[in-house]
Amino acid sequence: MTRKELIAQINKKQSFLCVGLDSDINKIPKHLLEFEDPILEFNKRIIDATKEYCVAYKPNIAFYESRGVQGWETLKATLDYIPKDIFTIADAKRGDIGNTANMYAKTFFETYNFDSVTIAPYMGEDSVTPFLSHLGKWGIVLGLTSNKGATDFQFSELKTGEKLYEKVLKTTAKWGNDENLMFVVGATKAESFANIRKIIPNHFLLVPGVGAQGGSLTEVCKYGLNSDCGLLINSSRGILYAGNDVDFAKSSAKAAKEIQQEMSEILSAT
Amino acid sequence: MTRKELIAQINKKQSFLCVGLDSDINKIPKHLLEFEDPILEFNKRIIDATKEYCVAYKPNIAFYESRGVQGWETLKATLDYIPKDIFTIADAKRGDIGNTANMYAKTFFETYNFDSVTIAPYMGEDSVTPFLSHLGKWGIVLGLTSNKGATDFQFSELKTGEKLYEKVLKTTAKWGNDENLMFVVGATKAESFANIRKIIPNHFLLVPGVGAQGGSLTEVCKYGLNSDCGLLINSSRGILYAGNDVDFAKSSAKAAKEIQQEMSEILSAT
Repeated sequence: MTRKELIAQINKKQSFLCVGLDSDINKIPKHLLEFEDPILEFNKRIIDATKEYCVAYKPNIAFYESRGVQGWETLKATLDYIPKDIFTIADAKRGDIGNTANMYAKTFFETYNFDSVTIAPYMGEDSVTPFLSHLGKWGIVLGLTSNKGATDFQFSELKTGEKLYEKVLKTTAKWGNDENLMFVVGATKAESFANIRKIIPNHFLLVPGVGAQGGSLTEVCKYGLNSDCGLLINSSRGILYAGNDVDFAKSSAKAAKEIQQEMSEILSAT
Repeated sequence: MTRKELIAQINKKQSFLCVGLDSDINKIPKHLLEFEDPILEFNKRIIDATKEYCVAYKPNIAFYESRGVQGWETLKATLDYIPKDIFTIADAKRGDIGNTANMYAKTFFETYNFDSVTIAPYMGEDSVTPFLSHLGKWGIVLGLTSNKGATDFQFSELKTGEKLYEKVLKTTAKWGNDENLMFVVGATKAESFANIRKIIPNHFLLVPGVGAQGGSLTEVCKYGLNSDCGLLINSSRGILYAGNDVDFAKSSAKAAKEIQQEMSEILSAT
């Protein structure tokens, strides 16, 4: 999906919500366990219930990989079920030397037909660029994550005065452009977005950590929105597990709709 | 496998060779393509030919993942085929927030029964520690890699005067110990090993980049060996594709044996 197409979807749906399909066999409603592939049944119902309110789906690959071969079959069937006008993100955080990174890119872009893959930056340029050369596909590089461990290295102060994550944003941005490269930026410190927007004003940012992890949607938007929206805000547990009975999908729809309406108001006000 | 057991294998075989099972359908001998699972046939013959000369096997997961469900089945069957007294490394370079890292650890340690997994450090402590709490299993953290992109961030100079990779080694070493934690350290600059051994004298180092990528075994050993050996030196292409006809496995055995003999001499001399 191109940047233009993504922006068109955001405008049409008045939403920049990404639903994280971190579907956990131990957390889905018990009545689904009767099905041959309970996770796929769960995903299908979540997709049906939320597709009107979101512009992206993001399965975290660990949740599928941990179920062995069955998990990869579930992932493929889930991808096939997602409407083609919705952006898809393989949250895989891959990163390896050039020719290996190229294999990972092919896996997610071709075998599973994802629009994008998240990438860890530690191994540098040749681990990132193989994800940037597929037309209409995207690499989404970890900039600043929202977990506790983010402070261990990402905030390391460099001799130049900048922090490591700032160098990662600056340097990586040069390897691609705002039509093939996005960044993961956690929402735990909304004020960081003002600084980040100075470094990468135009790129789309994938933002985890709103809601359950404590970030505020309004605050993130205040500092993070740009003239093309430029944000994809992810919610996983808050939507997936909004309900836990036979009507769980209705609760998920309601949770997604509430966020979409808040987003619609924010977009109208800017 | 415990550290004690690994050291016993190294002493017994007089080898610290790791064979990288980066088995590529486009590079294996053509006559194997007749089999139902050519990669598995290739791996079995490589394992039979080299198991006497090596103490570890390291499949790079990208090579299997890129083949979809079939690839994961090949990986599982390959792991089942490796003799239990040989150390196994899932070269997966995973790294995600705590509960997700835990799922990756379970996948490789339980579903596939690997002894160890390689880990990217960018997301910090909670992305690493879930790999360190499984008895007899290991996390192998990327310290200094041997690819071109290693210079982009790993060599960044910090305000404290140290380089980023030095901070990664120092900080990460505190999260575990030399019985559950190893580091990836590339061999392109053998002199770096002297400095690295000051930071982590006792840890095992997994060393790619000897041979094809230009590092010298003698030089690496000069600076990198410790009193328990402390090195696993990886070779992939140089062994896997030593030959390309029906007798390819004999060529692989010969290539592995040559390295083992060089290692045996080095071990005897220390």
